[in-house]
Amino acid sequence: MTNKHNIILQPSGRRGQTDAGTSIRTAARDLGVEIESICAENGTCGKCIILIEEGRFEKYNIDSKRENVSPVTPQERKYFESRPHLLKSKGWEIGQVRLSCQCRIRGDVLVNVPEESRGNKQIVRKSANERPVEVKPAIRKYLVSMTPPNLERPIADWERLAKGLETSMSLVRGGEENLPRWYELSIDYQCLRTLSKTMRDARWNVTVSVWNDKEVIQVQPGLHENSYGAAVDIGSTTIALYLCNLRTGEILAAESEMNPQIVYGEDVMSRIQYTIEHKDGTEKLHKAVIETLNKLLRQAVKTANKNLYANANKYEEDERPTYIKIEDILEMVLVGNSTMHHLLLNLNPKDLGLAPFVPAIHESVDVKARELGLQISPSGNIHVLPTIASFVGADTSAVILAEEPHKQDDNLLLIDVGTNAELVLGNRKRLVCTSTPTGPALEGAHVEYGMRAAPGAIERVHIDEKTLEPKYKIIGEENWNEGKAKGICGSAIIDAVAEIFRAEVVDSRGKFKKNLSTKRVREGESGWEYVIAWAEETSIGRDIPITQQDVRQIQLAKAALFTAARTLLKRMNLESPDKIILAGGFGSYIDKEKAMLIGLIPDCELENVYAVGNAAGDGARIALLNIEKRNEIDAVTRKVERFELPTDPEFQNQFMLATSFPHMSEPFEHIAHLIPHRKADPMAKNFIK
Amino acid sequence: MTNKHNIILQPSGRRGQTDAGTSIRTAARDLGVEIESICAENGTCGKCIILIEEGRFEKYNIDSKRENVSPVTPQERKYFESRPHLLKSKGWEIGQVRLSCQCRIRGDVLVNVPEESRGNKQIVRKSANERPVEVKPAIRKYLVSMTPPNLERPIADWERLAKGLETSMSLVRGGEENLPRWYELSIDYQCLRTLSKTMRDARWNVTVSVWNDKEVIQVQPGLHENSYGAAVDIGSTTIALYLCNLRTGEILAAESEMNPQIVYGEDVMSRIQYTIEHKDGTEKLHKAVIETLNKLLRQAVKTANKNLYANANKYEEDERPTYIKIEDILEMVLVGNSTMHHLLLNLNPKDLGLAPFVPAIHESVDVKARELGLQISPSGNIHVLPTIASFVGADTSAVILAEEPHKQDDNLLLIDVGTNAELVLGNRKRLVCTSTPTGPALEGAHVEYGMRAAPGAIERVHIDEKTLEPKYKIIGEENWNEGKAKGICGSAIIDAVAEIFRAEVVDSRGKFKKNLSTKRVREGESGWEYVIAWAEETSIGRDIPITQQDVRQIQLAKAALFTAARTLLKRMNLESPDKIILAGGFGSYIDKEKAMLIGLIPDCELENVYAVGNAAGDGARIALLNIEKRNEIDAVTRKVERFELPTDPEFQNQFMLATSFPHMSEPFEHIAHLIPHRKADPMAKNFIK
Repeated sequence: MTNKHNIILQPSGRRGQTDAGTSIRTAARDLGVEIESICAENGTCGKCIILIEEGRFEKYNIDSKRENVSPVTPQERKYFESRPHLLKSKGWEIGQVRLSCQCRIRGDVLVNVPEESRGNKQIVRKSANERPVEVKPAIRKYLVSMTPPNLERPIADWERLAKGLETSMSLVRGGEENLPRWYELSIDYQCLRTLSKTMRDARWNVTVSVWNDKEVIQVQPGLHENSYGAAVDIGSTTIALYLCNLRTGEILAAESEMNPQIVYGEDVMSRIQYTIEHKDGTEKLHKAVIETLNKLLRQAVKTANKNLYANANKYEEDERPTYIKIEDILEMVLVGNSTMHHLLLNLNPKDLGLAPFVPAIHESVDVKARELGLQISPSGNIHVLPTIASFVGADTSAVILAEEPHKQDDNLLLIDVGTNAELVLGNRKRLVCTSTPTGPALEGAHVEYGMRAAPGAIERVHIDEKTLEPKYKIIGEENWNEGKAKGICGSAIIDAVAEIFRAEVVDSRGKFKKNLSTKRVREGESGWEYVIAWAEETSIGRDIPITQQDVRQIQLAKAALFTAARTLLKRMNLESPDKIILAGGFGSYIDKEKAMLIGLIPDCELENVYAVGNAAGDGARIALLNIEKRNEIDAVTRKVERFELPTDPEFQNQFMLATSFPHMSEPFEHIAHLIPHRKADPMAKNFIK
Repeated sequence: MTNKHNIILQPSGRRGQTDAGTSIRTAARDLGVEIESICAENGTCGKCIILIEEGRFEKYNIDSKRENVSPVTPQERKYFESRPHLLKSKGWEIGQVRLSCQCRIRGDVLVNVPEESRGNKQIVRKSANERPVEVKPAIRKYLVSMTPPNLERPIADWERLAKGLETSMSLVRGGEENLPRWYELSIDYQCLRTLSKTMRDARWNVTVSVWNDKEVIQVQPGLHENSYGAAVDIGSTTIALYLCNLRTGEILAAESEMNPQIVYGEDVMSRIQYTIEHKDGTEKLHKAVIETLNKLLRQAVKTANKNLYANANKYEEDERPTYIKIEDILEMVLVGNSTMHHLLLNLNPKDLGLAPFVPAIHESVDVKARELGLQISPSGNIHVLPTIASFVGADTSAVILAEEPHKQDDNLLLIDVGTNAELVLGNRKRLVCTSTPTGPALEGAHVEYGMRAAPGAIERVHIDEKTLEPKYKIIGEENWNEGKAKGICGSAIIDAVAEIFRAEVVDSRGKFKKNLSTKRVREGESGWEYVIAWAEETSIGRDIPITQQDVRQIQLAKAALFTAARTLLKRMNLESPDKIILAGGFGSYIDKEKAMLIGLIPDCELENVYAVGNAAGDGARIALLNIEKRNEIDAVTRKVERFELPTDPEFQNQFMLATSFPHMSEPFEHIAHLIPHRKADPMAKNFIK
């Protein structure tokens, strides 16, 4: 027997030599393989399970056997013997399976590190674009076992805990340097209040949750491995909350509710107006959102526990998970536009709505849950992502975090469309942003027969360019031209406008042509219109047309969006973006070819136009699960350049030009085949590239 | 004219050469003379006034004249012309008096820096022992003038303020390095809530209060130079509060109230018992002290404003001080024994009273005022000094801070006597501490005819050793043996016991001698006693004796105190301390010779025994006025060695031996002349030195 032995770690294949007597966990760490542990290597938490593989491994030229490691310790025996089902279900036997903190090397071994023991390697897949997220939460848990105080060492409870914690932190995290010393750690005041009782009730054996390596925010009796957090996207219309396991990154529940502030105003400007006109307006809108967040938190906990309960019979008794209480949620990350951000934090949003449109704060905010009345742990942290400008809020920060334009060589154009559209353009070298009001038309509101995307709504429209007859698809029906129509939803309005332009029912200025040989184009009550569905095809007994007014609304919206995009491209000296990312629900429903056809988005290869769904919610979840991402987005947003469109002297001019379909100075080569009749507009020379 | 000029600064006499064009404030700083400024050198705050002295100064070989500095600027002219009374009262004229931030050097000058302009050099004299305190408060104020936002630069309010503040901090504080960068400064959440309104109301000209160089806790419109803080000593019986000007260190009001917790128990043990027996006990006692603190704060503000008002006619209109509001108080520093400390912080004190006697926390606590319900600024900080042990609390930390044994070569013995006595012994090398219950006798309580130090109380007693007749002095009377006695206060009890021992009325074991030729020694209702005042000399119509029981009480108290002191001396291998410091009201009233005579304090040169009054209150005030002192006491208390007497195996034995007058094995050479009859006690050999 020599003093150095070979160790091979599977499945990574890492190998190296290590001193006799070294624990397998330490040896693995030295070879760059992290094995979990939260009990300070006391052999009690069972997070560091490994398997000693037996046999001759020719590839590595070693004989691995159980005798090449130290014998099973009493702690290991106790741990495994109290979990017979674990061994049975996995087909393991004691001696083969070991706790790597207890098991020391005495000869050559090949060690298998099962998935569940691998540290710091969890991956979360995003619903939309499957981007992996490394789980590095702000909350870390440590099991701390202390010697009870006695007359010889009557050191205070906090100092006793902090000293034990210091030991535990450095052991669990592999003796990293620069860990806080115990008198640099602090404890949240409300957490301190119950500390003495908890430590005694727990017989000096507690799980400590440390926030951001610097503040103790929860102390629980005994061993608890999971901690919980919630990511929230506060939209003007909908609030979506994701309850996550901060250890695994798993989403335990996703809940959403209407934003209760809607009763005070449908869009942000009318809510700001409400706070200006009512003395307690800010307070009222703030309370409304806090109440809804508490409701969503309770719902999410209920859902998560229901799932745990439903799966409970999958677990053996010794393995059964503990149910979640709302106070076990230790952190929330929230995003929303600047108005939602201000109302969440009970900050008066007045100056967001008045020139020169200034938020109270850009940088991210950390505040205790109890300060806001959120019913998670009172010591829990509420992190709100940074705002970029008055109309480019924390939701855009979250979209940037999710889509990472700051890490790409390609120039991305991010567009988050709602009543207001936020646009970010750029790559790792430079990012510029702006925002523009697009009005409610793109969401199907304020359109004559507009309605939500619900059964009965026309969602797709196609017009035959010869006969000018339409086909349409109704939500809830399997085939085109089936069922009774009730109205038109957002995506169909874009379809319809694009189709009447493509079929030359309207000219490039959006004006209806009056000498067409079809009854569908007619002068209706409110001006010229094109009838998509005759009264007898509807459930409302009236013709459903798309009117001149509707076309104008879409023209204004698309002009605003297009001019904003153009302005950013111009600032970056770009002709067109390499990729276009459409965030938000809107992007997921529209037909991107049609959107390009009417000039809603700049010309780009269609395959490089992506709809990524709720990227703001994803960004919030990324920031919740990985604290390093918070510093990243703080730094990125500090450098994003803001452009306020109204201050651009060319804006009005450009905007007017951009109302035509699609803007005539643009090549739009990717949709050229759809509009062979397109001619250069004589006004195009005025459009500055 | 050369490029370098001579500058002489009076009254310090600092001199040096400086480049032409340098402002006098900068030049002074380079020579180590700090001149105040809070307006970022904008010439608006007037804190940096200096005088240019004219004439030939042979000593320095220079001709100083007004022409040797840059002409008076418009800002200076505006500042001084709006303050004619200032100039008149001081006899200054513009040109002679200058703002040193505006006035630049063009030739040799001799500059006089008046007292009020000198930075960082304020001195506070302590009431008791005149120890100077350098004023370096945690709160610093900065005047920040900002450019209003516009459409081109719509940066958020907080970032605008923080950037202005960064500039202001570095200018005001002389370009120091390592100042926080704006995104490392934070703003208290509650302060952020009103920020936008304040900045606009103030037309972008605000005074910012920064706590500990890292957190903005107050933003006020316009210029405010003063900030306020309160230092509090929470005694079991009395709460004393000092309202201070944090800029000057001045005490603006000193208020005190009975501790309202007295109704729940007279001493700390009975209050702890109350919290054990009543579920809401801790909460109740906590609320009681918070209410009283709020009352004291309101009283102190009222007193301070009354004084300001009374002196208002001393000020000219342009100089009149602004009145103080309770929300202008930005910080409090509190001290108290460990039980008072716990109840202040709403921490359950149970384990302070049960073996092994463990506090919840040793280290100092910083918590927002709003968390405790204290009615100073909600963003204000509450700093509670560290505790050392269960019975050596934050009050002892404060006494250490005031008396600084850790900075002395001499060994100090600090004794803070109440119902419990805390003792600290040592010097810069090592400090040890302990505590001992002394019972209420030393404070005059539980003594047969004991009473508070109020008119009618006997305060001094002398007994003629021949005739055994007493003389006594009554509070409120000018001469001895005048007036009608009502009872005996604490100091007189020690006097009386010392005198009956010195006059050999009792033996060294404290037993009354029964064969004395005086009617004053007699067997009374509750045993043997010595009558100090006959019934006809009193206002209560009864004889006022000192009883065997009273003597026993004093014996027990002094034995406890003496044994504690002896134990510490033994641990430090010392025969006797170099100095004895008696802290607390008790120390101020007793006759130190008599105290030594009965062995209450160890033998020491009488001139090295000091009574320092409320040293705990002084320590709290020092920590309030100088933030560096907080780190100092945190560090010192971490190193103080604690000894719990009951764990010392010799304690009971020593304690019994020490009940005799004075302990017979002790030399007590400094009082030997008073007791020529003293003989060595045969038991002395058992007393371990």
